Amino acid sequence: MLINHPFKPSHTLLGISRGSVFAALVCIAFVLPSIAKAQKQPVDYVNAFIGTTNFGTTNPGAVCPNGLMSVVPFNVMGSADNKFDKDARWWSTPYEYNNVYFTGYSHVNLSGVGCPDLGSLLLMPTTGKLSVDYKEYGSTMTEQKASPGFYSNFLPRYGIRTEVTATPRTSIARFWFPKGKSNILLNLGEGLTNETGAMVRRVSDNEYEGMKLLGTFCYNPQAVFPIYFVMRVEAKTTATGYWKKQRPMTGVEAEWDKDNGQYKLYTNYKKEIAGDDIGVYLNFDTEENQAVVVRMGVSFVSMENARENLNTEQKGKDFEQIRDEARNKWNKDLSKIEVEGGTDDQKTVFYTALYHTLLHPNILQDVNGQYPTLETGEVKTMREGNRYTVFSLWDTYRNVHQLLTLVYPNRQKDMVKTMIDMYREHGWLPKWELYGRETYTMEGDPSIPVIVDTWLKGLRGYDINTAYEAMRKGATTPGPQNLLRPDNDDYLSLGYVPLREQYDNSVSHALEYYIADNALSRLATALGKKADAQQFYKRSLGYRHYYSKEYGTFRPILPNGKFYSPFNPKQGENFEPSPGFHEGNAWNYTFYVPHDVMGLAKLMGGQKNFVEKLQTVFDKELYDPANEPDIAYPHLFSYFKGDEWRTQKELHRLMAKYFKNAPDGIPGNDDTGTMSAWLVFNMMGFYPDCPGEPAYTLSSPVFNRVTIHLDKEQWGRNELIIETKCQQPSDIYINRITLGNKLFKGYRVSHEDLLKGGKLMFELKGSH
Amino acid sequence: MLINHPFKPSHTLLGISRGSVFAALVCIAFVLPSIAKAQKQPVDYVNAFIGTTNFGTTNPGAVCPNGLMSVVPFNVMGSADNKFDKDARWWSTPYEYNNVYFTGYSHVNLSGVGCPDLGSLLLMPTTGKLSVDYKEYGSTMTEQKASPGFYSNFLPRYGIRTEVTATPRTSIARFWFPKGKSNILLNLGEGLTNETGAMVRRVSDNEYEGMKLLGTFCYNPQAVFPIYFVMRVEAKTTATGYWKKQRPMTGVEAEWDKDNGQYKLYTNYKKEIAGDDIGVYLNFDTEENQAVVVRMGVSFVSMENARENLNTEQKGKDFEQIRDEARNKWNKDLSKIEVEGGTDDQKTVFYTALYHTLLHPNILQDVNGQYPTLETGEVKTMREGNRYTVFSLWDTYRNVHQLLTLVYPNRQKDMVKTMIDMYREHGWLPKWELYGRETYTMEGDPSIPVIVDTWLKGLRGYDINTAYEAMRKGATTPGPQNLLRPDNDDYLSLGYVPLREQYDNSVSHALEYYIADNALSRLATALGKKADAQQFYKRSLGYRHYYSKEYGTFRPILPNGKFYSPFNPKQGENFEPSPGFHEGNAWNYTFYVPHDVMGLAKLMGGQKNFVEKLQTVFDKELYDPANEPDIAYPHLFSYFKGDEWRTQKELHRLMAKYFKNAPDGIPGNDDTGTMSAWLVFNMMGFYPDCPGEPAYTLSSPVFNRVTIHLDKEQWGRNELIIETKCQQPSDIYINRITLGNKLFKGYRVSHEDLLKGGKLMFELKGSH
Repeated sequence: MLINHPFKPSHTLLGISRGSVFAALVCIAFVLPSIAKAQKQPVDYVNAFIGTTNFGTTNPGAVCPNGLMSVVPFNVMGSADNKFDKDARWWSTPYEYNNVYFTGYSHVNLSGVGCPDLGSLLLMPTTGKLSVDYKEYGSTMTEQKASPGFYSNFLPRYGIRTEVTATPRTSIARFWFPKGKSNILLNLGEGLTNETGAMVRRVSDNEYEGMKLLGTFCYNPQAVFPIYFVMRVEAKTTATGYWKKQRPMTGVEAEWDKDNGQYKLYTNYKKEIAGDDIGVYLNFDTEENQAVVVRMGVSFVSMENARENLNTEQKGKDFEQIRDEARNKWNKDLSKIEVEGGTDDQKTVFYTALYHTLLHPNILQDVNGQYPTLETGEVKTMREGNRYTVFSLWDTYRNVHQLLTLVYPNRQKDMVKTMIDMYREHGWLPKWELYGRETYTMEGDPSIPVIVDTWLKGLRGYDINTAYEAMRKGATTPGPQNLLRPDNDDYLSLGYVPLREQYDNSVSHALEYYIADNALSRLATALGKKADAQQFYKRSLGYRHYYSKEYGTFRPILPNGKFYSPFNPKQGENFEPSPGFHEGNAWNYTFYVPHDVMGLAKLMGGQKNFVEKLQTVFDKELYDPANEPDIAYPHLFSYFKGDEWRTQKELHRLMAKYFKNAPDGIPGNDDTGTMSAWLVFNMMGFYPDCPGEPAYTLSSPVFNRVTIHLDKEQWGRNELIIETKCQQPSDIYINRITLGNKLFKGYRVSHEDLLKGGKLMFELKGSH
Repeated sequence: MLINHPFKPSHTLLGISRGSVFAALVCIAFVLPSIAKAQKQPVDYVNAFIGTTNFGTTNPGAVCPNGLMSVVPFNVMGSADNKFDKDARWWSTPYEYNNVYFTGYSHVNLSGVGCPDLGSLLLMPTTGKLSVDYKEYGSTMTEQKASPGFYSNFLPRYGIRTEVTATPRTSIARFWFPKGKSNILLNLGEGLTNETGAMVRRVSDNEYEGMKLLGTFCYNPQAVFPIYFVMRVEAKTTATGYWKKQRPMTGVEAEWDKDNGQYKLYTNYKKEIAGDDIGVYLNFDTEENQAVVVRMGVSFVSMENARENLNTEQKGKDFEQIRDEARNKWNKDLSKIEVEGGTDDQKTVFYTALYHTLLHPNILQDVNGQYPTLETGEVKTMREGNRYTVFSLWDTYRNVHQLLTLVYPNRQKDMVKTMIDMYREHGWLPKWELYGRETYTMEGDPSIPVIVDTWLKGLRGYDINTAYEAMRKGATTPGPQNLLRPDNDDYLSLGYVPLREQYDNSVSHALEYYIADNALSRLATALGKKADAQQFYKRSLGYRHYYSKEYGTFRPILPNGKFYSPFNPKQGENFEPSPGFHEGNAWNYTFYVPHDVMGLAKLMGGQKNFVEKLQTVFDKELYDPANEPDIAYPHLFSYFKGDEWRTQKELHRLMAKYFKNAPDGIPGNDDTGTMSAWLVFNMMGFYPDCPGEPAYTLSSPVFNRVTIHLDKEQWGRNELIIETKCQQPSDIYINRITLGNKLFKGYRVSHEDLLKGGKLMFELKGSH
């Protein structure tokens, strides 16, 4: 997802790729067992720099799996040429690989999103004369090192080495200063978020607590929320104080105020300070190579909770212990999937992708269980499990939750419980929830396929009746009072959403409703609600209204019932606005009816026409690998007998072309792990291409052997194994599939059958 | 006191005076006893509009005697022509009589000062469509009414009548709305202070708590302090929210943010907000003439204390009760001095002046006794008595504390205790203390004469030994580490302060040190510290260094020991800078040696030369009635036998010329009551012209009879009575004085003798 991006997220923009890891497929499983295997753990394969340029918007910061806290080197402001700076263009990441100007560590960040938010509480070490102006105090950075839960760099300007690591809700930084005057700055005025305003209070010379406003995600002015923090600095200070940029005054009076419009230092003020652009400074006399440790706890509930989080999670622990614990947590999670065969680069992109799928949604509640409820401003307490936040559901409903369901079912269960609780709190299921606020970003009703998919796969442990009530409310509430489907009046009465404003994304809206209603119909069936099932199923076929025989694509419909004219199905490329379609053109949406592929094919005149047209999308580069609507296009070939090889071919081509062990190794916004989950599934050889349908399309894996360590209590077995047999690296076409040692016919397997089989074996060949 | 004022505080600027109340003296005591006397109380005579223009910088707001809270109609921003607006010129008052554009009530204000500060927490009622921009939402105001503890006006634009009253630490406002949509705004971004930054938190739809930064008094960037508040609105709201002016962004990104640089409404955000320019709005549906009550408590310690102050002081009380209690407190205090005879206008200026002397210093501690200590950032608790704040000591050491000592001794005692506690906290006695911060405004060591004067008059109840230690520290600590006397190195080694920078006010500094050292010498004598007494006395005569025979005035001395040249003793008029002198010229300072008038006269060649030269100051209008250094000049004639009539003549002339029952009825900044205390004493016929010396110069009173109700426990008697006998209104010259019914010789009486006598009688005549 990427809103109104004015630039094409081109994979060729930055020529730093180390080349495709898929350029030659590896087929060495039983030939060359890696001798390093015993030593190199999954965590060692993660390259946290993948996706940090080319609009991947991931970052190399220190974070725990699904952790609230992340500590990211912030390098997108204050540089001389400003090329990658946050205010020079649409910008949505605190870190860009090609930028070199470091202005501190931002605390609590988003990964892979398309809009700017969070990325604040900027912690910066400097030396010499104090400057609090980020345009002055930044430094280049070198010697960057990143591994899960750890990041380090060196600041040549100051001769400072910096290191950071994290617990789920807290951070710890260690700055190695040279001898002399040293400073630590906490900048609360700047950051990635466009929201401003903060308050900070001196508790002692070494401890500060405060609050900063965040929000306006995707330029939604109302999606505002606070972050609370406490910061402890472990060193004897020589002086401490605040700064605040003074509001510019005009007129005669302004002449009297020498600080007018400037950063003013508050050298002797000891109570709390508040303002748009404020910060805290601490001065030290340091010895050569003296380490100063800074610990920070955060909370979205209160400063007290931020302190409790810090006290609890870091109690008695030093930097090394915390770093090691973070690493171990990652290794444990990443080891849930073990891969064999494949090159180191392939393992790297795989485990990095898996790493990226375990960043968001992340936990929200404090160690005492408290969390801000959705949109109410109230605080509640978790009795058990986790409360999650950062639900980028228009993206993640497609594959992230399916991956979590299979491999990390307890997390998925808690996420579904969270979504149902959000309905209880706010009256609506989430759409794009961010730290207790509904940002209403993107369209559709994406909670439905997530919950239905989870339920139909047999994952239980939440109140499905309330969930159904919530989903039904979203599906049936008419008019503008429907916060999830604001155009439901049209949709309910016409079966589609007509184009009422030039760029109202009407077709995209309706296509999402069809998918959601199809999923809801499946659940209604499962729950024995036949009438509902029939109604929602019928609705889900309304996509047919949009099919234009003339163009062979979907096409917006005007309020008078006629197609929108003049019509150019290609309009919408490069993030240009397109009537009826959001972040794409008609080609990127026309095949997006995963719940009725055969029906769509029939509309198009049958298999041959469908397949030819779909192949054209790839051949003419109408396919957008960087955005969600068409990411399951390659799998559609597999619905048609004899054309399944196209799925295998296109997937291998796309993986090879767009995913690399390099900073530009993701073709666009990772979208809180959606692009990465796509890669994880497809590298393993199966993909959930119809959200809400408990099934996967099978394709040829990249690895020789994949072992998914399952939750036996949930899935009834310890492992799901995927094996590949091939003769040479170019063998990418499926010759034969066995499941549970029995020949498997077809290219689509139900979740239940897959788990019953327990072992999937692909025999590959070099041509189709 | 008025710092660097770019305009002459001319009494002719605004031609709205109702004419001098002293134009014809009244002499009717035994002729026409006022028949209204029995009904009209002292409180009824107060005209709170006196001093509200002509730079008097008083205001007509609601306040209790020495109360922390004041509620003032804020009318100095946002008007179309901006003539009297705070940012259009040097400005130091929240209210100006000739301004008509009302933008709300400011809470906690200064009265009579020369620098902008406080005057924030702006509470504004409006109707119709919500606007949060003060440039839009202001209204003209009419039907202003003010009496001690109460103020009311009408807003024609909205049809709203507003009323406010106060308890010592809380306010209550009542807005009478018309039928329709109504709004209440609390603006935390604007105000008189130049400091910005605030935080406010919604407790419920009807209650808000928060903090606002205040300070930078007299453009001291470090004198910053917070005010805490809680606001309760007694009406059912239809909506509530915040606003914040968005920081202007530039660059491409700015284009995406529609609120960029604008006031943004936060319609659904329910946690706290912080920023430079924020506020709270509440919407109501009101019936015709519906009253909405808004209660506010403040504290300089915490929001919790603000709430406790509100709960305690307003418990169970409605608007009328609170208004009546405030009025009764004022009447009780003002009735300590009863005057008879004199016109209503004379009584009005008298009681208004007395009212103005009872505004500052004001109490600081909360109802639970807590207060912020001076400069430490710590909180302490009063066990008994009051902690005071707002010590404009360069002004008030001259007469305000002398008036309090005589008439309100318990307050003066608590103020002295406060000053000694400030030394304990900060290490230095106060100079210009403001809500827990030392602003270091103006020069000298003014706590010394205040404490010495109090002690030598016999008022006890504080630790004089610690006080002496503190005073001695200020007098003897060398070098720049002396925070009260930064040029003490020069002063101690040379006996004067040479001019080291063009506008370093060196002569003014030294003259203040002489006075302080003389007072300290008197106390040393009283405490039996003979060597100290001798040393400080000797120092106090160092003024002689500055006397230039050539000019007959004081004249700056250069570091090489020579007089500053070229020299113009008139330079310094109209607040132009003057080498060596602060807010005045050589003429305004040359006679300011009240502790050695005879010595100065000797320097000048004896009585004749002294008197002639002093008379010239008046005749050539070199006397500045609007500033402190020369305000005791008229009394100096009385040191010389045969010339005492000049004191009487000049005082009556000055009172008649500069003090009126009119908004421009004070000749310049009231200086937290100093101009008013001057008037109170002189209208009664005696004046403490040498701070630190327990004595008064006698002059002819304005009233026929003055009864000061004394604290018998303190002064040994219930009343001090001053009677005047005259034949006709023009009888202003003293023919004969009796004290305690005995003939009194001379024109200067000790405090002790005055109180022993108990009754002072002036027999006046028409010519000298």
